Amino acid sequence: MTPSNIDVWRIALAQIDPTVGDLDGNVDRIRKATLCARQAGASLVAFPELAVTGYPPEDLLLKVSFIEAARDALLDLLDVAPEIVLVVGIPWVDNGVLYNGAAVLAGGEVVAVVPKHHLPTYGVFDEDRYFARGDLTYRFLWGPLRFGVTICEDIWYPVGPASSLAATGIDLIININGSPYHRGKWMQRQTMLQTRASDAGCYLAYVNMVGGQDELVFDGNSLVLGPDGEVLAHAASFDEDLLVVDIAVDAVLSSWLHDPRRRWLATSDDTATMVVHDREVRLPLPDQTLPPIPEELRQLRVPLDGPAEIYAALVTGVRDYVRKTGFRTAVIGLSGGIDSSLTACIAADALGPENVTGLAMPSRYSSAASLEDAQQLASALGIRFHVVPIEPVHQAFRQVLAPLGNQPELPDVADENLQARIRGTILMTYSNRFGPIVLTTGNKSEMACGYATLYGDMAGGFAVLKDVPKLLVYELARYRNSLSPVIPERVFTKPPSAELRPNQKDVDTLPPFEILDPLLERYVERDASVDDLVREGFDPATVERVIRMVDRAEYKRRQAPPGVKLTPRAFGRDRRLPIANRYHG
Amino acid sequence: MTPSNIDVWRIALAQIDPTVGDLDGNVDRIRKATLCARQAGASLVAFPELAVTGYPPEDLLLKVSFIEAARDALLDLLDVAPEIVLVVGIPWVDNGVLYNGAAVLAGGEVVAVVPKHHLPTYGVFDEDRYFARGDLTYRFLWGPLRFGVTICEDIWYPVGPASSLAATGIDLIININGSPYHRGKWMQRQTMLQTRASDAGCYLAYVNMVGGQDELVFDGNSLVLGPDGEVLAHAASFDEDLLVVDIAVDAVLSSWLHDPRRRWLATSDDTATMVVHDREVRLPLPDQTLPPIPEELRQLRVPLDGPAEIYAALVTGVRDYVRKTGFRTAVIGLSGGIDSSLTACIAADALGPENVTGLAMPSRYSSAASLEDAQQLASALGIRFHVVPIEPVHQAFRQVLAPLGNQPELPDVADENLQARIRGTILMTYSNRFGPIVLTTGNKSEMACGYATLYGDMAGGFAVLKDVPKLLVYELARYRNSLSPVIPERVFTKPPSAELRPNQKDVDTLPPFEILDPLLERYVERDASVDDLVREGFDPATVERVIRMVDRAEYKRRQAPPGVKLTPRAFGRDRRLPIANRYHG
Repeated sequence: MTPSNIDVWRIALAQIDPTVGDLDGNVDRIRKATLCARQAGASLVAFPELAVTGYPPEDLLLKVSFIEAARDALLDLLDVAPEIVLVVGIPWVDNGVLYNGAAVLAGGEVVAVVPKHHLPTYGVFDEDRYFARGDLTYRFLWGPLRFGVTICEDIWYPVGPASSLAATGIDLIININGSPYHRGKWMQRQTMLQTRASDAGCYLAYVNMVGGQDELVFDGNSLVLGPDGEVLAHAASFDEDLLVVDIAVDAVLSSWLHDPRRRWLATSDDTATMVVHDREVRLPLPDQTLPPIPEELRQLRVPLDGPAEIYAALVTGVRDYVRKTGFRTAVIGLSGGIDSSLTACIAADALGPENVTGLAMPSRYSSAASLEDAQQLASALGIRFHVVPIEPVHQAFRQVLAPLGNQPELPDVADENLQARIRGTILMTYSNRFGPIVLTTGNKSEMACGYATLYGDMAGGFAVLKDVPKLLVYELARYRNSLSPVIPERVFTKPPSAELRPNQKDVDTLPPFEILDPLLERYVERDASVDDLVREGFDPATVERVIRMVDRAEYKRRQAPPGVKLTPRAFGRDRRLPIANRYHG
Repeated sequence: MTPSNIDVWRIALAQIDPTVGDLDGNVDRIRKATLCARQAGASLVAFPELAVTGYPPEDLLLKVSFIEAARDALLDLLDVAPEIVLVVGIPWVDNGVLYNGAAVLAGGEVVAVVPKHHLPTYGVFDEDRYFARGDLTYRFLWGPLRFGVTICEDIWYPVGPASSLAATGIDLIININGSPYHRGKWMQRQTMLQTRASDAGCYLAYVNMVGGQDELVFDGNSLVLGPDGEVLAHAASFDEDLLVVDIAVDAVLSSWLHDPRRRWLATSDDTATMVVHDREVRLPLPDQTLPPIPEELRQLRVPLDGPAEIYAALVTGVRDYVRKTGFRTAVIGLSGGIDSSLTACIAADALGPENVTGLAMPSRYSSAASLEDAQQLASALGIRFHVVPIEPVHQAFRQVLAPLGNQPELPDVADENLQARIRGTILMTYSNRFGPIVLTTGNKSEMACGYATLYGDMAGGFAVLKDVPKLLVYELARYRNSLSPVIPERVFTKPPSAELRPNQKDVDTLPPFEILDPLLERYVERDASVDDLVREGFDPATVERVIRMVDRAEYKRRQAPPGVKLTPRAFGRDRRLPIANRYHG
């Protein structure tokens, strides 16, 4: 018999930042967050998708030893706060097949491991490579509370485990996620979740991962929605967080009494597309006399948006990439241009200025103003700064190369690239000798067009602005200066130049960024064709020229370091043109 | 009414080498091969999977304009030899969804487009990213001949479209393929196909693609099997080929009369797992008075095997990568070691010695013997050869770097990498100035362990030995010398050294290759764990050391050029460890 006065259930969502492969560290985070949740009076705490292994584990999932170690790490959690229900993402073998699972732990046992049904295999996702598609759906019964667990992609389908749970009768759906960031995604996600909660007529708790992992950034933004789709609680953007919320079983019943669509949901054959299996949670029912949730855990945070959102994504990506790969410090080539200036700001904000070094490497073609601007930025940011003139090395290269054949009119493209490669070599030698990671400074517009030197300015461990088009670079730099003015004004106003030959300007090679950036956005993100672009009013010759540059630069981008993704289709694993591609349409 | 004396059908398999994206060029190849097939009296000619677009088209499949251009290119083929049936691979939109299809063209119309059922998404395959899974199976009726078409992966499943066709009654199954090479795969494939033909009790025509496409090589080795699984015809390894075979409908009936398993196949409910739709081919029946197949097209070629197979794969990969990316010539850094010597041989055989340049770039640590060996190899191969001493540049770098901080005891690792990067820069400058592609020379054993310099010896457009372990390098070099002795004997006998500091040897850093290579094979290809390796008798300390080196070198390999794949799990897109991976098991 369930006592009728049990209504309020305090649940917690632990928005943590795991590291792929670091099973001990991840389990440690899970343990600590569980104890915090318990302390706040929660009787259930949910963690992100594959929280034990980190996401995405990629080919680690092909190692038997890794799968077994992850299982052992999960079982280690059985003894932490046994009076609380844990929902934890874990790769799980059942009958010889691997699933992307959500383990529900309670009272010292694994009550069930829920498999993911829909395996995303697009964009940054590759889950069909590793996992089997699940077809089991569970409902957990804990006194009067009926809850279900679904995993990430599952909630994006209007018909699936969530709709089947709703048709069977459910108070709370917990959706655990490893949902990577792209610009403005939180809003798209929230809109969808509001519809799902309202369609299902129940509470919906969405817990996301946070932090950077290789080229991905997870934005957090976990949230809890009520049975009418209203947002009840919202966690931080780009920070670890613990969200604690009280949900009331009666509110679900009330919603069903008021809404005729609910009755149809429960009685129509159309909605229950799959069998739902019940599992009992054998734990005492929660104390109904708990004090209110402490102020600092009762959050309805406003998600970051606009340039603040993007800047935070970049800082998060740099901070976690550097930390998770075992570096602590970074070195950047400072040209005095806008790209390297913004890169230095992001690095200083991510790692602390004391951990960042800027190297200015002037050549015979560098302007005095550029060196001055670089120096001024470094001093305003409080980062270390050195000047390494490349002239002697440049001369020595010209000398040894001279006997090789017909001497070109200098500087030619080879000589321009040579200067960039000398700088790349100096940065890498500095890195090898003193230990910092090299951060590259190229923006997405240049990278797209191949306006960059492989093994030159593209040499380094992480490409901070890889997915930031040039106009957005300016916008982010303005935003950063609005917090504290560190980038000299002249950096914003001078025309962009690589300074690799006398009086060189970017517009000698590229169309103006006001044309290039929107053109690239349409071609790269939306796969617009030449015809589409011309129909939109772009000049046909410019379109042809840019498309050829972009397609031909594929080989450069394939050999470039990873960088934070800001868009659904950045360059990187989620945009793969064949290298020997004859189609430029 | 079908005349009863129609029994023999002459079919052709066109093993062609398409280029991804080159729709015009590919259709041209298809047209020419069709005319050859017609001339040889064939009444049906089959082309590889996605022959119109090349394989794998990757993200080109996300462009509407590309899909439409491919469809138009296919329709252009309707007028070529209208009296012959064409089977051609093509991406095909049906009802708003994209399938990997096989179009059957006859009499100026598209009779049907057969969809692929099983979409491989493992190893080098990513088909679930682009295509919908087909569920339609067709049987084509042409007088007394009943034939079906399946696509690549479909034939690897014991139950699927092929078994359904067999249960429905079929004389010939045509399987069209883009089946990438790995070492010895032809044998595994042939064994499976013999079983399938014999299980189905019909002729099985397997047509594969040939040639290199980015990091993939297709080995060809197309073949035709009879209803008892016997190999009737076999095309060339690693070369374009046209296979012409006469098949007899009576031979299928004879096999069914003799074999009780056939009767069960036709009458049991277990085997026809899917509905088969019949489509009629409206063409005149073939002439039964044809002269015999010309000698040069009646082939039962012996597939290449052993070192000859691997060497041919590497030559094919280099030849097509260079050609398809628009290069004609190549430059290689020649150290006088075994790796660069073998690379130069492969390049000379792939591109012609007149199109290959070797640069020797001795430093203060290079031995006179090495320079001599490099020179001797270049002269034996007949390639161009230059010497570019790096000492002046090395000195200049040391000079500009000196003021940066505490001076290390030289040479340190940074100084070793510096020398490699100077060489990489010289090769790239040569490439930028004179036009050849840079071929890198590192072998798989070194690359696996990260015993290589990013932007140094790893700089270049194509990594010829990326999937060749060191012991296999020696084996292939011996094989090449057995054809004509070009590599000096001393290159085989001296201990491997990077010559980046005095008296350096590879074994100062790496275990002996006799231990390292088998250890890597188990760890990389089979994901053996530390425990597994120790159980197999490897020294625990060596195992730990090697595994950490391999895992940590992931960031280097991600920024490395593509290279020919020889194994099911080479480094490259099909082996992805997260960069920030804390698990080394």
